[in-house]
Amino acid sequence: MGEFELIDRFFRRPVRRAALGVGDDCALLNIRPGMQLAVSTDLLVEGRHFLSTVDPARLGHKALAVNLSDLAACGAEPLAFTLSLSMPRPDERFLAPFAQGLLALADRHGIELVGGDTTAGPLTLGITVMGEVPPGQALRRSGARAGDVLWVSGFPGEARLALEVFRSTLSLSEDDFHAARRAMELPEPRVALGLALRGLATAAIDVSDGLLGDLGHVLRASGVGATLRLADFPRRPLLARQPVAVQRMALLTGGDDYELLFTAPEAAGPAVQAAAAQAGVPVQAIGRITATPGLQALDEAGAPLDLAGWAAFDHFKS
Amino acid sequence: MGEFELIDRFFRRPVRRAALGVGDDCALLNIRPGMQLAVSTDLLVEGRHFLSTVDPARLGHKALAVNLSDLAACGAEPLAFTLSLSMPRPDERFLAPFAQGLLALADRHGIELVGGDTTAGPLTLGITVMGEVPPGQALRRSGARAGDVLWVSGFPGEARLALEVFRSTLSLSEDDFHAARRAMELPEPRVALGLALRGLATAAIDVSDGLLGDLGHVLRASGVGATLRLADFPRRPLLARQPVAVQRMALLTGGDDYELLFTAPEAAGPAVQAAAAQAGVPVQAIGRITATPGLQALDEAGAPLDLAGWAAFDHFKS
Repeated sequence: MGEFELIDRFFRRPVRRAALGVGDDCALLNIRPGMQLAVSTDLLVEGRHFLSTVDPARLGHKALAVNLSDLAACGAEPLAFTLSLSMPRPDERFLAPFAQGLLALADRHGIELVGGDTTAGPLTLGITVMGEVPPGQALRRSGARAGDVLWVSGFPGEARLALEVFRSTLSLSEDDFHAARRAMELPEPRVALGLALRGLATAAIDVSDGLLGDLGHVLRASGVGATLRLADFPRRPLLARQPVAVQRMALLTGGDDYELLFTAPEAAGPAVQAAAAQAGVPVQAIGRITATPGLQALDEAGAPLDLAGWAAFDHFKS
Repeated sequence: MGEFELIDRFFRRPVRRAALGVGDDCALLNIRPGMQLAVSTDLLVEGRHFLSTVDPARLGHKALAVNLSDLAACGAEPLAFTLSLSMPRPDERFLAPFAQGLLALADRHGIELVGGDTTAGPLTLGITVMGEVPPGQALRRSGARAGDVLWVSGFPGEARLALEVFRSTLSLSEDDFHAARRAMELPEPRVALGLALRGLATAAIDVSDGLLGDLGHVLRASGVGATLRLADFPRRPLLARQPVAVQRMALLTGGDDYELLFTAPEAAGPAVQAAAAQAGVPVQAIGRITATPGLQALDEAGAPLDLAGWAAFDHFKS
């Protein structure tokens, strides 16, 4: 099966919103008048971002989900995406479910695959996603102000439990492992929440590399500090039944959940809750922005917690 | 050196046209009112699209050039691009010249690197480029009509000579090899020509996989055929001094020159020449579009040439 046949067979679909889709030198997209284009790109490498044993349908979902999550963190409305796919050889048993998982998520968000490139090589997935946002309304990392409340969506940390099982450093019951693995492999990009937070959140980021590290980006970009209250972090039974040290590790350094971490003025609390309800996503206040730079944390009993030694995940560190 | 430091050190530059550049979840771009967005993406894999011995500065140039070439083939004006970079480990001796070559070409086209992703993995480069084009004015593959003249820009085939030297199937003098290698490693995307051909060319494509294969895409998309006249193909001394069989192979199946192949009505000939002169790129009429599907060719003496056996380069064939 050659490159062009492969594109045709698994990825070509009727053009809807795009003026011209897969199959010409460029895709053409109509941007609504007055909207800014939001763009984000991610590269997933086998053995680094996913295991060779992953279900291809889940991999297709996740490859797009992590990119949609970036749009969510900007409060942008998804529009279209491109896919670059390098694989050792065209493998129908991989491509059919991969395309199914990818395009199912695309359909749920009403976006189109408008272009791509396929080639022989190590299994690598590159996606660039494009969205629209009204000028001045994009959520950025740099807007957090002292006194703002720090919020997180969903139940961060669950995905990390599955990773620890794969690393053989944690044992879970079969049901718990399935739930944790689902959190890791099928993250739900918080697009609706990001849209609902426009005009409310002062800063936002999606947690992909670990909450501490990603919060650090917000604090540095905003020139502020923060205090976290571990007691207020959301924990479902899956996480709550783990040892406290595991809970903290998962909550503070777990990435892969792709939840939104965002700040808003205290007075906006009810509006934030209403936005979350409208988006169908639970949110929880977990701390506060401080004028003093640096990150402090209070443990489950309210005592200071030493954060030294918790390092952010870095794709070039092992 | 970690991922974030790496991005900062080699790729972060002041934001110019983009509203928000590298360093947030998304880049934000202003699209001029009423313009369509043109998008294209390419993935380059070491050992497949470039050799490990390539000069990193030239690789940086080429990685962006092949994407700009897609915009050129659409008649789109380049706006911005994203870069995904997977490499075994951060290597300053590679990254510094790579970024220099990449950003020098970007500067010449007035476009910005607005986002990216870097990760550990096999050396792989993914670029997505974005441009603007007025609605209805993009050059497409599907507009060729019977009677149109088939044109090509520049001097296709020279890049292929360098590839054959690397394959040890051809010997060149040192000067000729340097010239051919330059054609292969430093292709000049025909952006100005693509813009000048708006409203003139009926169809266009950039020759990346070989002239026959890329012409085939135009013919299929347009539902027409073509006759090529080998005698009219442009040949500089570098190519003309090779054996005729090598010349034909290079002209008909060589990719990597990233010249534009386009069609225009016969009456538009003087306007095409004027557009080419304005863009500073030579163009040459090399054939004609026919109503009968299929591809015919006349050799240098005007006799029919059998094209069977000339296959288009396919990234999944060896």
